[in-house]
Amino acid sequence: MPARLRVNAARLQHHLDQLARIGALPNGGVCRLAFSAEDKQGRDYIEARMRSLGLAVQIDRIGNILGTRRGARTGPLVLAGSHVDTVGTAGRFDGSVGVIGALEVIETLNDAVVSTGHPIGVIAFANEEGARFVPDMMGSLVFRGDLQLGDARSRVDRDGVSVGEAIDRTGYASTNDFTDVDVRAYLELHIEQGPILENANMTIGVVEAVQGLTWITFTLTGATAHAGATPIDMRRDAGYVAAAIVQYARTLSHEIEGQRATVGSLSLSPNIVNVVAEHARVTVDLRNPDADRLTMAEEHLLRFVAATALAERVTVSHTVDVRVPPVRFDPLVVGHVQDAAAALGYRSMRLVSGAGHDAQILARKFPAAMIFVPSRGGISHNVTEFTSTTDLEAGANVLLHALLALAE
Amino acid sequence: MPARLRVNAARLQHHLDQLARIGALPNGGVCRLAFSAEDKQGRDYIEARMRSLGLAVQIDRIGNILGTRRGARTGPLVLAGSHVDTVGTAGRFDGSVGVIGALEVIETLNDAVVSTGHPIGVIAFANEEGARFVPDMMGSLVFRGDLQLGDARSRVDRDGVSVGEAIDRTGYASTNDFTDVDVRAYLELHIEQGPILENANMTIGVVEAVQGLTWITFTLTGATAHAGATPIDMRRDAGYVAAAIVQYARTLSHEIEGQRATVGSLSLSPNIVNVVAEHARVTVDLRNPDADRLTMAEEHLLRFVAATALAERVTVSHTVDVRVPPVRFDPLVVGHVQDAAAALGYRSMRLVSGAGHDAQILARKFPAAMIFVPSRGGISHNVTEFTSTTDLEAGANVLLHALLALAE
Repeated sequence: MPARLRVNAARLQHHLDQLARIGALPNGGVCRLAFSAEDKQGRDYIEARMRSLGLAVQIDRIGNILGTRRGARTGPLVLAGSHVDTVGTAGRFDGSVGVIGALEVIETLNDAVVSTGHPIGVIAFANEEGARFVPDMMGSLVFRGDLQLGDARSRVDRDGVSVGEAIDRTGYASTNDFTDVDVRAYLELHIEQGPILENANMTIGVVEAVQGLTWITFTLTGATAHAGATPIDMRRDAGYVAAAIVQYARTLSHEIEGQRATVGSLSLSPNIVNVVAEHARVTVDLRNPDADRLTMAEEHLLRFVAATALAERVTVSHTVDVRVPPVRFDPLVVGHVQDAAAALGYRSMRLVSGAGHDAQILARKFPAAMIFVPSRGGISHNVTEFTSTTDLEAGANVLLHALLALAE
Repeated sequence: MPARLRVNAARLQHHLDQLARIGALPNGGVCRLAFSAEDKQGRDYIEARMRSLGLAVQIDRIGNILGTRRGARTGPLVLAGSHVDTVGTAGRFDGSVGVIGALEVIETLNDAVVSTGHPIGVIAFANEEGARFVPDMMGSLVFRGDLQLGDARSRVDRDGVSVGEAIDRTGYASTNDFTDVDVRAYLELHIEQGPILENANMTIGVVEAVQGLTWITFTLTGATAHAGATPIDMRRDAGYVAAAIVQYARTLSHEIEGQRATVGSLSLSPNIVNVVAEHARVTVDLRNPDADRLTMAEEHLLRFVAATALAERVTVSHTVDVRVPPVRFDPLVVGHVQDAAAALGYRSMRLVSGAGHDAQILARKFPAAMIFVPSRGGISHNVTEFTSTTDLEAGANVLLHALLALAE
């Protein structure tokens, strides 16, 4: 009987659409920044749905919501979930798919009166995006003590409002914490947020790792000079060095296996057509699934920038703003995802996640993995983000069967 | 007697210092934006000094001030001058040196009771900088009809004030025009605004040409993409193409003789560390003293940008914002400058002006040339702009003797 079990695609899409009405933007996107009134309404929707499905609901002090379906035995939970907070101009899929998908799995099990050995938990983590309060993945970090509650509560947004104030204002947290919740395995269904599945015409991404991440900001100082009156070899052009960094990022991406290097932000000062730039600020986003290669990329970059700046007589300083090590997911959990996709007949491929997810935090403590479904055009964090109902259905079915296998 | 004639360095410096008190900034610079109250006061100072030196003063409808010293014969003027308007945070030398220097020449001739064959005129052109009202060199353009007065008066500043309103408000213009003023030759003493003379340890730059100038703005459109989730070869990175343009500008400067190419302004959007830039805006400032080479540089640049954008699947459009042809100064006038510098024993070298000056507009109609004196560190359009009294004196002495030769 369980082997033939399938989620209800229309119901899955319906609940996703209902959630997308909360914080809806006029242009089709949503905005539910962490700990805002809209985020609270979104989480209320999730809590209500958990209760209507008969789950035992608990909320912790950072606002993570956990709904538990009893198993035949007590013992560690098999946990599935994601988040429902969003960036400022978000689509309707990022995060929501993992929570709504897990709840659809519960309803499917309820309808079929399937009993699992282990209890199954559905969790909605607070503030995954970090768009309002840094760091991102705050809820999953607090979940098992990777971030102290007091530290998290003290973080402030651009308006000077702290996490603590925002949580207390929306009345979302409780006095519980989840530090004694035991987890057998964690699975997260998520949109890919990149173009790989679509380009390869695949339905399911079996996520085996999350790239490590380093963010570096370079501050370059040369000298202003008149564009007409100053010979090239007498210039100290901060903009020239900045541009060389952009080009070198591309070189790094080709030279180091698995490397992605991106300059998304570059600013010049005074930024005038006929004045050589005195100052430049350049960020570099480095990603690699291999920790050693990520370190190598960082070293190569710093060496290149130092040499290029020296040759141009530009001074350079840098800060490492973020450094997150790569994560390898648990081979057994990944194997269950792979097996479920194969048993269900979906075209699947192994993937490395480029973006950060709650699953990588959970993976520090528990066996974990992720399931990706395609993002049309690779677009995410944008109101035009889209994944078809068919692909969502496939992802939820893989989640269902991988959870069943893990909960046996 | 005239061969031994020298300007009075202390008096030259004194009047320059007096002028610098008008519109003085707290940090040592000055601000006399065109047609402002401060610009009016600066021009009042020049007019008063002309009258005190016995010059016949005329003002035209755009606010150019002409003071004429009689010659033994009537006939075309030998004209010297520059401008006293400034950019927003200017030094004390740019422009002022040419007007104050020419007036010092007049006082030197008066003191020595030297009579010239041709009359000598001193002119302060209105709005050379174009910092408030575009185009720059407005006064010299209107002087002989290269720009129509009505067109000039209709130009507006950022606050919506027109040139006409600003002139009428400060009460500076008259109902004259200078279209029938005949000019035998025009000479302009100016600071170099670049580092060449200082680096070569020269006192006098004999300016034989002004570079041609082309300003191009490129607008690039790719697609936003997640820095972690998007493989390099699936990106359409507008920032990557923008940086390639910066690098290619340097290449052009090395490959084409006499070429200077500068990217002073580059902006990305959305300009976020982990998002591939969808939009980029890049300006390129191209200069060359040779018209054909300048055209070649422009063609090479457009071809490079088109090919690079195509390879990255980024769309590109461009506008040519300014195109000013190079100017060759009159060999005879240049020769007089060279001869005067040699006779006076100053170390001199031939130079091409990188910046634009009133002299290049005058050169369209009359024999013209320029005399450069060193700018410390090549710095200009900055409150730290500096030229020593000794160098100013040398420049004014060259102006004196070149004018005497031309006015014989």
